[in-house]
Amino acid sequence: MAVDNRRLAELASHDAFVHRHNGPGANDVAQMLETLGVDGMPALIEKTVPAGIRLDRELNLEAPRGEAEALDYLKRLARQNKVFKTYIGQGYYNTHTPAVIARNVLENPGWYTAYTPYQPEISQGRLEGLLNFQQMVMDLTGMELANASLLDEATAAAEAMALCHRANKKVKSERFFVADDVLPQTLDVLRTRAAYFNIELVVDAAERINDHEVFGALFQYPGETGRIRDLAPLIDAARQRNVMTCVAADLMSLVLLREPGALGADVVLGNSQRFGVPMGYGGPHAAFFATTDKLKRSIPGRIIGVSKDSRGNQALRMAMQTREQHIRREKATSNICTAQALLANMAGFYAVYHGAEGLRTIATRIHRLTSILAEGLKRKGVQLAHDSWFDTLTLTGVDAGKIHGRALTHEINPRFYADGRIGISLDETTTAADVAVLFDVLLGDEHDLSVAALDDAVVASGSSGIPAGCERESGFLTHPNFTRYRSETEMLRYLKRLENRDLSLTHAMIPLGSCTMKLNATSEMVPITWPEFAHIHPFAPADQAVGYKQMIDELAAFLVEITGYEHISMQPNSGAQGEYAGLVAIRRYQAHEGQGHRDICLIPSSAHGTNPASAAMAQMKVVVVECDKDGNIDLADLRDKAERHSESLSAIMLTYPSTHGVFEEGVHEACRIVHEHGGQVYIDGANMNAQVGLCRPGDFGGDVSHLNLHKTFCIPHGGGGPGMGPIGVKAHLAPFVSNHVVTPIAGVREECGAVSAAAFGSASILPISWAYIKMMGASGLREATELAILNANYIATRLEKHYPILYKGVNGTVAHECIIDIRPLKSASDISEEDIAKRLMDYGFHAPTMSFPVPGTLMIEPTESESRYEIDRFCDAMIAIREEIAKVESGDWPADDNPLVNAPHTMADLMDAGWERPYSRELGAFPSDAVKAAKVWPAVNRVDNVYGDRQLICSCPTIDSYRD
Amino acid sequence: MAVDNRRLAELASHDAFVHRHNGPGANDVAQMLETLGVDGMPALIEKTVPAGIRLDRELNLEAPRGEAEALDYLKRLARQNKVFKTYIGQGYYNTHTPAVIARNVLENPGWYTAYTPYQPEISQGRLEGLLNFQQMVMDLTGMELANASLLDEATAAAEAMALCHRANKKVKSERFFVADDVLPQTLDVLRTRAAYFNIELVVDAAERINDHEVFGALFQYPGETGRIRDLAPLIDAARQRNVMTCVAADLMSLVLLREPGALGADVVLGNSQRFGVPMGYGGPHAAFFATTDKLKRSIPGRIIGVSKDSRGNQALRMAMQTREQHIRREKATSNICTAQALLANMAGFYAVYHGAEGLRTIATRIHRLTSILAEGLKRKGVQLAHDSWFDTLTLTGVDAGKIHGRALTHEINPRFYADGRIGISLDETTTAADVAVLFDVLLGDEHDLSVAALDDAVVASGSSGIPAGCERESGFLTHPNFTRYRSETEMLRYLKRLENRDLSLTHAMIPLGSCTMKLNATSEMVPITWPEFAHIHPFAPADQAVGYKQMIDELAAFLVEITGYEHISMQPNSGAQGEYAGLVAIRRYQAHEGQGHRDICLIPSSAHGTNPASAAMAQMKVVVVECDKDGNIDLADLRDKAERHSESLSAIMLTYPSTHGVFEEGVHEACRIVHEHGGQVYIDGANMNAQVGLCRPGDFGGDVSHLNLHKTFCIPHGGGGPGMGPIGVKAHLAPFVSNHVVTPIAGVREECGAVSAAAFGSASILPISWAYIKMMGASGLREATELAILNANYIATRLEKHYPILYKGVNGTVAHECIIDIRPLKSASDISEEDIAKRLMDYGFHAPTMSFPVPGTLMIEPTESESRYEIDRFCDAMIAIREEIAKVESGDWPADDNPLVNAPHTMADLMDAGWERPYSRELGAFPSDAVKAAKVWPAVNRVDNVYGDRQLICSCPTIDSYRD
Repeated sequence: MAVDNRRLAELASHDAFVHRHNGPGANDVAQMLETLGVDGMPALIEKTVPAGIRLDRELNLEAPRGEAEALDYLKRLARQNKVFKTYIGQGYYNTHTPAVIARNVLENPGWYTAYTPYQPEISQGRLEGLLNFQQMVMDLTGMELANASLLDEATAAAEAMALCHRANKKVKSERFFVADDVLPQTLDVLRTRAAYFNIELVVDAAERINDHEVFGALFQYPGETGRIRDLAPLIDAARQRNVMTCVAADLMSLVLLREPGALGADVVLGNSQRFGVPMGYGGPHAAFFATTDKLKRSIPGRIIGVSKDSRGNQALRMAMQTREQHIRREKATSNICTAQALLANMAGFYAVYHGAEGLRTIATRIHRLTSILAEGLKRKGVQLAHDSWFDTLTLTGVDAGKIHGRALTHEINPRFYADGRIGISLDETTTAADVAVLFDVLLGDEHDLSVAALDDAVVASGSSGIPAGCERESGFLTHPNFTRYRSETEMLRYLKRLENRDLSLTHAMIPLGSCTMKLNATSEMVPITWPEFAHIHPFAPADQAVGYKQMIDELAAFLVEITGYEHISMQPNSGAQGEYAGLVAIRRYQAHEGQGHRDICLIPSSAHGTNPASAAMAQMKVVVVECDKDGNIDLADLRDKAERHSESLSAIMLTYPSTHGVFEEGVHEACRIVHEHGGQVYIDGANMNAQVGLCRPGDFGGDVSHLNLHKTFCIPHGGGGPGMGPIGVKAHLAPFVSNHVVTPIAGVREECGAVSAAAFGSASILPISWAYIKMMGASGLREATELAILNANYIATRLEKHYPILYKGVNGTVAHECIIDIRPLKSASDISEEDIAKRLMDYGFHAPTMSFPVPGTLMIEPTESESRYEIDRFCDAMIAIREEIAKVESGDWPADDNPLVNAPHTMADLMDAGWERPYSRELGAFPSDAVKAAKVWPAVNRVDNVYGDRQLICSCPTIDSYRD
Repeated sequence: MAVDNRRLAELASHDAFVHRHNGPGANDVAQMLETLGVDGMPALIEKTVPAGIRLDRELNLEAPRGEAEALDYLKRLARQNKVFKTYIGQGYYNTHTPAVIARNVLENPGWYTAYTPYQPEISQGRLEGLLNFQQMVMDLTGMELANASLLDEATAAAEAMALCHRANKKVKSERFFVADDVLPQTLDVLRTRAAYFNIELVVDAAERINDHEVFGALFQYPGETGRIRDLAPLIDAARQRNVMTCVAADLMSLVLLREPGALGADVVLGNSQRFGVPMGYGGPHAAFFATTDKLKRSIPGRIIGVSKDSRGNQALRMAMQTREQHIRREKATSNICTAQALLANMAGFYAVYHGAEGLRTIATRIHRLTSILAEGLKRKGVQLAHDSWFDTLTLTGVDAGKIHGRALTHEINPRFYADGRIGISLDETTTAADVAVLFDVLLGDEHDLSVAALDDAVVASGSSGIPAGCERESGFLTHPNFTRYRSETEMLRYLKRLENRDLSLTHAMIPLGSCTMKLNATSEMVPITWPEFAHIHPFAPADQAVGYKQMIDELAAFLVEITGYEHISMQPNSGAQGEYAGLVAIRRYQAHEGQGHRDICLIPSSAHGTNPASAAMAQMKVVVVECDKDGNIDLADLRDKAERHSESLSAIMLTYPSTHGVFEEGVHEACRIVHEHGGQVYIDGANMNAQVGLCRPGDFGGDVSHLNLHKTFCIPHGGGGPGMGPIGVKAHLAPFVSNHVVTPIAGVREECGAVSAAAFGSASILPISWAYIKMMGASGLREATELAILNANYIATRLEKHYPILYKGVNGTVAHECIIDIRPLKSASDISEEDIAKRLMDYGFHAPTMSFPVPGTLMIEPTESESRYEIDRFCDAMIAIREEIAKVESGDWPADDNPLVNAPHTMADLMDAGWERPYSRELGAFPSDAVKAAKVWPAVNRVDNVYGDRQLICSCPTIDSYRD
């Protein structure tokens, strides 16, 4: 009797994840298709996805695994990693994540499912968290301004270089000085960036900075080998010569060291990882970036600022955010448009929980243990490279081979230099017992040293590794936020209070077009805090990261099959980084083929601003291709421009489906045209969620794409990062993707520099995407895409009687999102898309994407994870709002006093004794039954952006100012 | 040079947990002592704790460990447990906890730090969760009423026996029938309970029930060996004879089996563990208990009911709760006064998430795999004990020794019967691959069976282990709560919505006197979800639970040192269970000494109602000892009564410090008097939080105490359970504590029956208390106690100008709590303690304990974990409320329309267009700056308890009824 495999599959697992991930059930789907008047899902897909590009088979992936099964499998992989005690340093350190922060922030969907705080009224919690982070950075670095984090220390250094290049009008040089004890991975990324900015790097000993004609300089503080230099005289002399100075600093060391602001630095940057964020094999962590006040209009990345709301109450929001949304495009020197918000929040909370005293205890203890280690080694005649240190010693003239053997036995990782030197970096997890083991490893078992006796000697002599004049003298973290929350109870309540000020996916749909706010399933999130993934140093020996490697290889194989490319580079740690890495790969490939002169990049007018910015950073010239009235690329214009620039055509950057939310029929032809003229095709993967399982960019003409794992593949947005932007490439580009100087990547040419600090970017969040694909399988992924399309079309159908839908495909369907046009309404009623966005908060929703890609519109993307219940609730709200607008149009409500322009409504409104509005309190704050049952309160009234940008304040306000 | 140990300790760890656990910092302490006018902490303790009983040394415990260090150590212990795949059954099964429930309920302080929902207006979330649980139980059992959980299946069976004993007025018998295939641990507990009720147990084959003259009967369904009997004819015949019938049922099997309600049962009970709650070496899990409607006024435990609030809106609350607070005392047949709320919520959510279809899939799959296993075994000639099964097979005539060897190799646990039979119980985690391994283990490797082929045969033949007539025919879980939340996104939002309706320790102090709502630190909570603790069957072989044993032994050693007793029995899984176990130990000891006639139990009039109830259950006669005007035991009265009952004096039950919150000076003397008259001293450990490190009950006269680990030792209250109530005993009582029939306990006499289903009660939460003690160390524990006393005295001092403090010690101090007297105010203003309690919600607080131990009072216990900030906030609120009461007294506000009688205020009040109250909306809902900054909204207005008790509805209301 034949075995029925379907039945065996039933026996294997009873709870298919696909039904947990997708919102609508079978009955819902049937009814929604009926609403669309479409006869079945295949018919909808046929109408929507052009026949010429449709995949005619299921993806070739393993059968879907149940949640428990997938986690079991992943746990087995994880156990192949070896968690040695690591002393490698180089910008990554062991740290204790306070349990209250781990559980209530990192492992809490209330924090990790939130979006970037573009809508400040429902984001005050994480905005305060980020302001804490900025304040902490400003205090520790001694700078006047800090941003809300960058991707990693190496890219932060590259941003600093670009900032100096742009800001320094006084020095004509195109050369940038890099001290020779800057971290190697930082130098690697600087080399990549410098090449396409035509900047020449001068690498030399820090002391020789003033021997060189440069526009700017970067120092490491302390240096990578642990040395602490007094940078003040160097910086001082440089400033005399109008050279701008940047300091890459270790945040923990700044607790004890004189702060770079006091040394005169223009920019201070670094990694905040060791403030409670696990190493995670390289990330994600929040890099910090601080500047002087006069650079405030040039600082890259996001900045949180203090403004006021329409009641005059203090309110936080992202400062100068228009800058980000209308990125400098082709004039850009940076394409950064995200942050590491979740990790910045964690680092900020770490500082809140420990406060200045706690940090002093931690830093002092690290330094004291290092001094004990130094004392012991010196007594035994070991030569140290420097006579200064904070937490890092470099040993010379030792028998590295023997030490290596003993280190393996004791399961610890010193840093082994190629030249035989040994580096040891201590951290807050190091104990006296660990130091004793270090003596055993470094000196052999018979050293007769006693940590206690050495400690006595160190304390008695008052000896220190910090040179005179380099000790910190100023205070820090004096704001009440850093003194009040010292007990776990107080900290827990603070975290909870902030969480409850914000709207996240735990409350409602976040229908942001192009952002794909889908389920971040718990089973996907669980592995990232497993110690076997969390506590691996990115530069740990390969044989300690075998589980990581296999997981990454498997994920790459999945993505190869999903995209139709032939290779995946897992390094870029954001979508924009992916764009940059992809374009750089194209340029390297073309240069290698003798086509290095090709530098024209065609970009449709509908593109996201990041596209031209990335092109500019890759030293390309942007030529805009027009769109036709239906929003599609004007193929005639494309043909024309490709022909005109045939000799110098490097690439085209396309988004597919287009940013207009439509599967353009002409994509195949567009790719053909570009190829015909010798160009490469970059397909922006931002809208990949509409393609998975239905079509593949690698099939219809793409040479390279980045994938937003934080959109399509379930990495949460974390309140504004982290993301991951790996790129898929065709075989010819594979040798030209990013390599890494410390941990070389097989198959990539040696000369290809890195784009990120770690070889696999933010490796510790890759299990999220791995688990998603593993649990969905081919059929599940395809069904998710189909449902994403169905949900969007259902919304378009329900709303089109009330709002015009701006763009549709040839058969009248949209892809996975739809744009509604508010401009006609605005003309008629003066109600703007922003008023609607704010009014949606009263109905308990986050706004759709505003004015992108078309000003005066709202772009709605529900994703497959939203249930029909939630989608109907959203459509009901939008329709009710349309009726409210009608009352303004008809004059029932004045244009300047109605629930729309007054939105959002807060508790302050409700308790207002002087309520004299032409509508009731109930209509203002409780316009639907759903919000009566579960209200999400905006914490502040509408925030005044102009005021805040004019009076830029990016530090924690005093308690008194809160009272005002 | 001598080594300075203090310095080495600094090097060991930088972040002492004691400073995270305790609220006030050093500066706060100094200022608070100044407020008290006391010169230093030693002076305060000297004033408060009688010199005669004060411990003159630090407890002898290890030095405190840092959080990371303690968890590392515990992880090493945990790894000594071996997580075999378990097929032991016997009421405990492997289960998949849906990740969204694990993370957002079990691991979420928003759920686990809440208190019992006595204040329904701020508890609607968990009340709805518990109502789901009740509905699920009612649906699956087919009964008309279910409670909100009991402690475990065995004690639920004992409650059922007692209920029948009390309720059956028609049969005069004192005999209770127990089917001989009831779970052995259930029978063990029944034997203990029956002995002291003078009930005779008749154990016989189920079929012979009607051969016996009994008042009630208990069946297991399916039987412990897996057999499914059609109970209908037996139950029917029994009913004809007025015998009440109870069915201990497996909840999962009821998905497929005819429900006991349809069979005619009066009571159905069992364990809901396999609905998503880890086995945890025995608990905690929620037992269920369902009855017919006519038993509704007799059902033990808590019941959630539907009522309405003062606006007429639907509101949930604990029904008939006065019953619980004013327990039957000496007439009691039950002393249960808690539930397993957190676990009941989890089980209910498991049903919500799977719904009827999901449960059907799970149950069907379990049954089909069992049928495949049965088919294969039968083909190979293995003899099965029964020809019916749901998930359990019993094999006879096999070579148990060989199977044992192969089971070890494959790391699986069958159930090994003493007589050589083998039991195999499958569960939802079992896969086809597991069944293949089972064949290998049971038959040896060369059996040539194919699971796929067997499945074909089973499906083709339609063969089933469920006898004809026993299949379930009725539907279940049809309420919308069980159909809407099927996607993870919807489920997550549902959980979050419910969480956000409740006030927990994540929001504010919960100053409940006698409940000790202190910090449940994250590091304490983390281990309970480690697989090495979570996935151990309570009857797993001892060598698989080595880590558990060591952790339990260490915890017991800590508690021995802390209490001054000589042995700890870790079995009682609640405080009341502990009381019962302690009194039973006394009775057994006295009987053994030929003093079995001693049956008088002296109990002070101030005692909690549970004390006399426990005494009654141990077949003791309660004699009340009066208190003097200061609230202390009247020693003259005690002397008098002890003398009068000298011949028959069994014990005294004292609470220390007294329930009046005072360290009574006479405790030593009271103990002496009782001992002099041959009695034993039971010291209730409810107030142990005032003693730890300062004095020890074992030193000043106690022979036995229970410890509320969920009060003093940080197990969270979980929204109304779980708790743990181990008892400390002097050496002479140690052989008489609870033993266990399945897993005997060393040092306890064999004939001593169990009080709980599992040998170590709710073992999986013991790591919480272990970690707390380990991280605090002796000095930390003492400091915590001192701070608990300081905090209480600070409150008393701040409030005494506004409210009279009812009782104080000889030097004018209180212990760890204080009672304020509301009766004079009530006479003057008509404002009651309940009005104050409800008004506190508007200020963002949970009420103190109301009217216990004295009617018309509030008892306030801050614990050491509350910061001075929070305590001041609370005192400010109480003082502001006093000023509000003054306005009622003065006539500024009418007695029937003021913020107190209208409290709590809800969003519905605020949006009320017809607001005509004599105070503003703002004063109503936002009476302080603190609540303006962070408001916790009561979900409903004041709940009408009388209405709800009159119209008892304990099932989920229909959606329509919600609309009303």
